[in-house]
Amino acid sequence: MQLIKNKDRSRLTKAALGKIPCDLSIDNVQLVNVITGEIYPAGVDVLDGVVVRVRMKGEACEPAAKEHVDGHGNYLLPGFIDTHMHVESTMMVPENFGKAAVVWGTTTAVTDPHEIANVMGVPGVKYMLKSAKRSPLRIFTLAPSCVPSVPHLEGAGAAFFKKEIEELLEEDGVIGVAEVMDYIGVINDDPRMHGIIAAGEEKGGFIQGHAPYVMGNDLCAYLCGGPVSDHEVRMASELVEKLRQGMHVNIKSSSLSDTVQEFMKGIRNVPVHDNVSLCTDDVHAADLLTTGHISHVVNECLKGDIETMDAIRFGTINAARELSFEDGGLIAPGKAADMQLVSDLKFDKRPLAVYVAGKLVAKDGQLIGEPATEAIQPGVNTVNIPQITSPEVFGIRSDKKEEKLLVFSASRDSMKPGQELVYKPFPVENGRVVIPNLDENQYISVVNRHGSGDMTTVICSDFYLMHGCVASTISHDSHNMTIAYRDINDAYVAAKELERIGGGMCFVENGKVVYSLPLPVAGLMSPLPVEEIAAAIQKMDEAVGYASDHRSPMLLAIAILALPVRPGIIITDRGVVRGETLQFIPQKID
Amino acid sequence: MQLIKNKDRSRLTKAALGKIPCDLSIDNVQLVNVITGEIYPAGVDVLDGVVVRVRMKGEACEPAAKEHVDGHGNYLLPGFIDTHMHVESTMMVPENFGKAAVVWGTTTAVTDPHEIANVMGVPGVKYMLKSAKRSPLRIFTLAPSCVPSVPHLEGAGAAFFKKEIEELLEEDGVIGVAEVMDYIGVINDDPRMHGIIAAGEEKGGFIQGHAPYVMGNDLCAYLCGGPVSDHEVRMASELVEKLRQGMHVNIKSSSLSDTVQEFMKGIRNVPVHDNVSLCTDDVHAADLLTTGHISHVVNECLKGDIETMDAIRFGTINAARELSFEDGGLIAPGKAADMQLVSDLKFDKRPLAVYVAGKLVAKDGQLIGEPATEAIQPGVNTVNIPQITSPEVFGIRSDKKEEKLLVFSASRDSMKPGQELVYKPFPVENGRVVIPNLDENQYISVVNRHGSGDMTTVICSDFYLMHGCVASTISHDSHNMTIAYRDINDAYVAAKELERIGGGMCFVENGKVVYSLPLPVAGLMSPLPVEEIAAAIQKMDEAVGYASDHRSPMLLAIAILALPVRPGIIITDRGVVRGETLQFIPQKID
Repeated sequence: MQLIKNKDRSRLTKAALGKIPCDLSIDNVQLVNVITGEIYPAGVDVLDGVVVRVRMKGEACEPAAKEHVDGHGNYLLPGFIDTHMHVESTMMVPENFGKAAVVWGTTTAVTDPHEIANVMGVPGVKYMLKSAKRSPLRIFTLAPSCVPSVPHLEGAGAAFFKKEIEELLEEDGVIGVAEVMDYIGVINDDPRMHGIIAAGEEKGGFIQGHAPYVMGNDLCAYLCGGPVSDHEVRMASELVEKLRQGMHVNIKSSSLSDTVQEFMKGIRNVPVHDNVSLCTDDVHAADLLTTGHISHVVNECLKGDIETMDAIRFGTINAARELSFEDGGLIAPGKAADMQLVSDLKFDKRPLAVYVAGKLVAKDGQLIGEPATEAIQPGVNTVNIPQITSPEVFGIRSDKKEEKLLVFSASRDSMKPGQELVYKPFPVENGRVVIPNLDENQYISVVNRHGSGDMTTVICSDFYLMHGCVASTISHDSHNMTIAYRDINDAYVAAKELERIGGGMCFVENGKVVYSLPLPVAGLMSPLPVEEIAAAIQKMDEAVGYASDHRSPMLLAIAILALPVRPGIIITDRGVVRGETLQFIPQKID
Repeated sequence: MQLIKNKDRSRLTKAALGKIPCDLSIDNVQLVNVITGEIYPAGVDVLDGVVVRVRMKGEACEPAAKEHVDGHGNYLLPGFIDTHMHVESTMMVPENFGKAAVVWGTTTAVTDPHEIANVMGVPGVKYMLKSAKRSPLRIFTLAPSCVPSVPHLEGAGAAFFKKEIEELLEEDGVIGVAEVMDYIGVINDDPRMHGIIAAGEEKGGFIQGHAPYVMGNDLCAYLCGGPVSDHEVRMASELVEKLRQGMHVNIKSSSLSDTVQEFMKGIRNVPVHDNVSLCTDDVHAADLLTTGHISHVVNECLKGDIETMDAIRFGTINAARELSFEDGGLIAPGKAADMQLVSDLKFDKRPLAVYVAGKLVAKDGQLIGEPATEAIQPGVNTVNIPQITSPEVFGIRSDKKEEKLLVFSASRDSMKPGQELVYKPFPVENGRVVIPNLDENQYISVVNRHGSGDMTTVICSDFYLMHGCVASTISHDSHNMTIAYRDINDAYVAAKELERIGGGMCFVENGKVVYSLPLPVAGLMSPLPVEEIAAAIQKMDEAVGYASDHRSPMLLAIAILALPVRPGIIITDRGVVRGETLQFIPQKID
């Protein structure tokens, strides 16, 4: 596919021959040529968003372009391409994410609007497409393949089958099917997954994979099923095997996890690195503000023993090839003028200039263009919790004298496979389970917020919730409301606050809202720009730090307690699930 | 695009998991992995023409495949891909070309049926598509872009505009637009070329280039015009510039010319070789029989200082990427099982085994499969020469006593730009020009054979035609009948013989046909298999050797005297043309 469709080739050839003036000429740069692996002095001329000429022998741009830029001997290289990310993870809407990422030299991001799809379905994805069009960088969208991530185990706001995927694939900017997480469904010929992949293939779309730890015959079967890439490589041996089996591997440095180090261990003995590209998957606003985007992943690669040209190729031409961007990933005549000017090749700071389709969108690390406008929003409150009628719905009821209840551990280890189930006895008073030591155990409730009325409450350990109640409507993948609390009244106040603000996060203590972070776009995203949302999240973080006496690394990660596509024990609105088997497990035993 | 469309992914995943048996398993091979650049022991399992499993750790194929092959430790690598060729140059029809090429490990050829298109138009191309389907290898076709090569200068059998290209792009097996030779038209915004390229782009097709010596701003303009590749790189500096400008360069070793040596000089200083692939362009049957196909180009690269893995990548994965063959060019799960088994990595002999879509098509250098069947033919005599009414139409008439006539030089130098025009006086007797010394000068007539009635006759030198008359209906690009002769009666007999046999080549002496080579398919191709056509061409070659006392290197190359897209002086059925300016030049002066 072409990044710039319907090029006026008549005008482009005229400009290349000097018959009409170019829009832009950049002189005196060291061109980073990712096709030949060379760096040499050059000048670049642009018309209609397309590079029409790369001058390599010191000639001037004739006739003079409308705008001329002196590159002062700095490096000009293609803009970076993020092969896999979720805009929702930034808690910003696409137009604001784009503004935050482009200043780091990213000119194209391939996104999976999986989170909003789980909340709002097709209209949510269409909102993301609309918002993406207002972004200064190219945002391409893949149709979310696993909505909900695993059916029947959780109550989501939508369910996608072949029909929904086909509808989305008709939309401008949708270029394939997003990370096919249900690898068990793919290799076991689940008709839903089969239909979704077939819909993508019929449109000639990209089929993105997601296959952590999948190796051996399972990996062969997964590749036979259609997906061609993976961004979840966790082990060096896995990396080598996946590359050998022809898979595209997207090396990740996200705010949640990092595969660069294992990549380093594995890549040393692989002579050719064609199928390696980079992604950020989940990146938080604060990291986008201070650390970088794909630039950061390149920088991480360079800290290892990856050669500079190799790392740049991962972030540019390799990604373009993986995604079949025929006119992207390189600076050459006839290709999209997506470029960045940098003073050195370390990628630890923002570029001097970033161009998307030949237009200067960032200069000296600052966004250029129209003054900030209000971000568009879908204008729907997605928090629908009819079951929250009183504080009494929280906690655990019983007509026994004692209950032997599952104790959910919120330690990092609980995310690993094979976790042992721990059941402990709890006393019952006045028909309600009592937690004798609230500093040791607290409650977690997962409240369906899509109107089903379901909710699940368990007792947890290792959360260190020392004060009040923390609640969030970000809770992968169905984004039900997840509430950690000591007192049922606080839980009720928190739920009602999140309902009032249309979703978000809050901290409640002694029945009062201490701090709340509104995320009115599907309960996932804020319309605020990066600086403001980063500051708001920082305040939320501080509230959570206070709530746990700064002892819980997991409390903000409340968001993944309910994610059924991970190993370990998972709480959904329908019960407690073991991730390895996708089976419900009992919340109490006799 | 997928080489194997509509894969039954349900069956493939089942086979990968060992739930159903594979069709074929090959064990005990050294796998040449073109993605990682490694060679290691492996086993490969195939179902429905697709690789479902690559076993890297010594496991057996479970359950046993229907057919098991012991690779005896030989090398298994992807089949070769020819990125640009004309089947007509082999003088074989596609099905027989395929049989001759596949035994050399070529499993995919991208062809330009430019020659038959000039003779028979769209029906000719459709015949090629039909014949190609009977070939054991994959033949993909590009819609010929330059029919005729240059309008108005010659009379062809057809003219293609956007409409014809669109019609062809609808056909199964047509994947883009073939070598866009009219680079002047492209960069000067000729509406015909513009429309043809646009038709290809609308279908998402590959736009193949052809740009000998085109560099600098012209090259930038050509790339802006749409074509993305070139197989005519003649100079080391041109190679480097084209690679730097993002062009795909197809290194050629054909029966007519070779760009490998210049490639060697240029490639040394280019660190990355992603955009290099291989082609044969024009290869003769005898060379296909004895020397090889893409294997030979790889072998030529290896004779230079190209590393083995690099050369193999040129002929496999690089070509697949250039042509967007998503499931081709590598051996990996989910990819087409196009493979060759070889005893060493020199490529100077035929492979031990060749598989196309997992089917064994050649073994120990010999074709496998059904007994030879009669090749299908279009069944049309394309030689239409109403103007050839008597011997008197040949030679040159005059009502003067002497004519000062252009003398066309058939020396190799005449193919170079800037050739000086030589005019010499010739006596006239009985209303006809007389050549005083027939050992020094002879006649050449180019006779339109598409029914227009046009013909051009000139006097030539440096042809060394010492006996009789040589005639051919192969004459690029319009394939009019080209006749070199000393005596007008011989010329008449030769023309009538070519009309009788439906086109081909012949040698006539003393009014009698001494040898004729029938090429009844469009006057370009024989239905005979490679051994027989190679032998017949050898006999024709011997007759021509006799005709010129073995002094003319050009007489068999009579085929390119009339090609207007080359420098030098060109004879067409409409007159004499200077290739550099595409202007007619006078055949006589006062």
